[in-house]
Amino acid sequence: MEIRKPIWVRDAVAKMMEYKKRGETELVSIDECDGRFLSEPIIADHDVPPFNRSPYDGFALRSSDTENASRDNPQRLQVVDEIGAGQVSGKTVGPMEAIRIMTGAQIPGGADCVVMLELVNELKENGESFIEIKRVMKKWDNISFQGEDAKKGTPLIDKGVRINPGIKALLATFGYSKVPVAKKPLIGVLATGSELLGPEDDLVPGKIRNSNGYMIESQILRAGAQYKRYEQCADDLEKLRDTIMQATEECDAVITTGGVSVGDYDHLPEIYEQIGARLLFNKIAMRPGSVTSCAERDGKLLFGLSGNPSACYVGFELFAGPYIKYWLHSDRPYLRTIRGTLKSDFPKPNPFSRFVRSRILFEDGKVYAEPVGLDKSGVVTSLAWADCFIVLPGGTRGFQAGDHVDMMLLEDAEGSDKPWQEPRFSK
Amino acid sequence: MEIRKPIWVRDAVAKMMEYKKRGETELVSIDECDGRFLSEPIIADHDVPPFNRSPYDGFALRSSDTENASRDNPQRLQVVDEIGAGQVSGKTVGPMEAIRIMTGAQIPGGADCVVMLELVNELKENGESFIEIKRVMKKWDNISFQGEDAKKGTPLIDKGVRINPGIKALLATFGYSKVPVAKKPLIGVLATGSELLGPEDDLVPGKIRNSNGYMIESQILRAGAQYKRYEQCADDLEKLRDTIMQATEECDAVITTGGVSVGDYDHLPEIYEQIGARLLFNKIAMRPGSVTSCAERDGKLLFGLSGNPSACYVGFELFAGPYIKYWLHSDRPYLRTIRGTLKSDFPKPNPFSRFVRSRILFEDGKVYAEPVGLDKSGVVTSLAWADCFIVLPGGTRGFQAGDHVDMMLLEDAEGSDKPWQEPRFSK
Repeated sequence: MEIRKPIWVRDAVAKMMEYKKRGETELVSIDECDGRFLSEPIIADHDVPPFNRSPYDGFALRSSDTENASRDNPQRLQVVDEIGAGQVSGKTVGPMEAIRIMTGAQIPGGADCVVMLELVNELKENGESFIEIKRVMKKWDNISFQGEDAKKGTPLIDKGVRINPGIKALLATFGYSKVPVAKKPLIGVLATGSELLGPEDDLVPGKIRNSNGYMIESQILRAGAQYKRYEQCADDLEKLRDTIMQATEECDAVITTGGVSVGDYDHLPEIYEQIGARLLFNKIAMRPGSVTSCAERDGKLLFGLSGNPSACYVGFELFAGPYIKYWLHSDRPYLRTIRGTLKSDFPKPNPFSRFVRSRILFEDGKVYAEPVGLDKSGVVTSLAWADCFIVLPGGTRGFQAGDHVDMMLLEDAEGSDKPWQEPRFSK
Repeated sequence: MEIRKPIWVRDAVAKMMEYKKRGETELVSIDECDGRFLSEPIIADHDVPPFNRSPYDGFALRSSDTENASRDNPQRLQVVDEIGAGQVSGKTVGPMEAIRIMTGAQIPGGADCVVMLELVNELKENGESFIEIKRVMKKWDNISFQGEDAKKGTPLIDKGVRINPGIKALLATFGYSKVPVAKKPLIGVLATGSELLGPEDDLVPGKIRNSNGYMIESQILRAGAQYKRYEQCADDLEKLRDTIMQATEECDAVITTGGVSVGDYDHLPEIYEQIGARLLFNKIAMRPGSVTSCAERDGKLLFGLSGNPSACYVGFELFAGPYIKYWLHSDRPYLRTIRGTLKSDFPKPNPFSRFVRSRILFEDGKVYAEPVGLDKSGVVTSLAWADCFIVLPGGTRGFQAGDHVDMMLLEDAEGSDKPWQEPRFSK
């Protein structure tokens, strides 16, 4: 039996990321950009506000005309025009004149302040309109200045950020009818194992349905990439090799699941060799997922994830996920790790770093981590409910409720610029 | 000028939710189910494990044959078969026999325990295989029992839950090649205002580009619904009325943005009346978004959101969002509210409940809320960065850094079964 030498999680991540790549840019319609990743920063194409504008419904006027205004000495100004939303006045405000103005409209020439609608009396006399103002206005009162929120040319949002509703609003504001986004990497997915049935198949003795393939495909979509599914291969060396070869040619990276057990039927190491892929690692000092492997061929990565669902899930999030996020131009491609308080005991010792699928809870301003699926009946649903991993470093004994632990967030848009780094200790 | 009477946020939400509806079910391929919402619970269609199986690579045998095994007295058993993944043995384990078994494979007849590969010596003699075992095994050692993780017929995941990778794995496991999901509601979107340009238009004096329409469309997609965009209407009463009428007929709900200011050009109240829609409310005791309105026509809702981007965003998340989530069969359609510590001063008093766009931070196991966009240059990007609202109840003075506040999570899959409820006080 082949002996595999486990390496640190941190070293495995670093080896893999030596082959990181940025995806090409493609322009998509703003109507198709949701959830895509910007491949260039968003730049303001104009000042915001684009012109001096009124923050209120009111009247634009010359502050000097209100110099002597008071409760006892209201100043009467003639209203000479009215500016609706989107309109511009052709008139200039002259002495003792005012122009009615809507919120957001451009301040007319001559005016240097705006008085709010509620603070004047409006009068009609002989078909003409007037206002009476009882307070002294200062120059630039109630004017939003051109460029005060953002100057033309300012980068507003970094590349590598996933487009959300607020970002889409910025794209529309700044005229991005076409949006530069990272082309999605195409990830080949191959679930190996002769015990696997499709979801449409009836169960037969000894077999189970393939769930890892579907799970990985969903993880690929969640990470922002796209997948191509390759036919489930029976454990047939030649067919498996040809399929993996084909996937490597057709895709930007390949993920296999299963067939990487320490048992008799694992062909992956052989296949890596036969197709000329260089092994980066094939054992990691972690649980679950210690038999996760990674190889490189012509600069493309092949991820060999475990056939165990939890191990497969963890392997994807620790390795394939960051690879994809970096491809999508993120400078924060790793899972964000925060601290939280353990909700229940986790008595098992951890000879290797352990990733425990868990749920994040918030109580009274504090973060708690609740392991899911520790009891047998939770095993089935634990991946469905997990939104974080608790990370227990190797070389530690069990943990008790109340202990502080690291938590890696799975459904987080922010990410991290550094991978989780376990403390090194002698194994 | 029309006088509008503000109502409590809690009452506005309750009035709107009187018209809540559940969407119909549609069956989609498992390949198309990501991000959709289950309209029925997921039920285990078989026991998990589906048969008694081995958790390890090893040998299945009869525990009684190891009764006298010890370091000094190894028992030799003959290996009579080998069960690969997905295979079933036709043989029954007899006295002093063993069958080699792979992880996950079905326990053969006759055997009542499994010994791990690493714990036996394998021998070959005259072309026959044997193992030597040096320890006493107990009945049912290392057997995963049929149904111990989940019994056939058990509901595993509630309806109304968004499908994530772990849930997709369950769907595959339980044979859901077609997945019952809620049909997405179709939401009509109408950005009103003659000052609005498209993202492809060049700026012209006095006008701005329509960003609210795109933002709302993105919020609709994020909430899990689909949209239909209606042509931007200039502030032309008849055209606006006809378009809103058409949208109400064609869609499940309608959202308008803009044209709901207290200024001169607001036609919405008139239009509601002309198309026979009953006004539920048109002013809410909150900032921003006090002029959010809602009307009902033939059981369909019309949401009138403010033209101010922040107010529009908040209005969507507080009202349209929960309406959509309920439609998608969620019993937790409201935004989840947690407690956190304010990171910076918020000195403004709050005559009405205030929703401050903010970012959630985690530090040393605690949750913090950092308002975004309080400074002028942050206004433009504040919606892009917000992942929560701080909620400051009406009738409160300013808040200081260190104060504990409510935070509503915007990018959270869990939701809440109750809306945020402000304390009532006399206005």
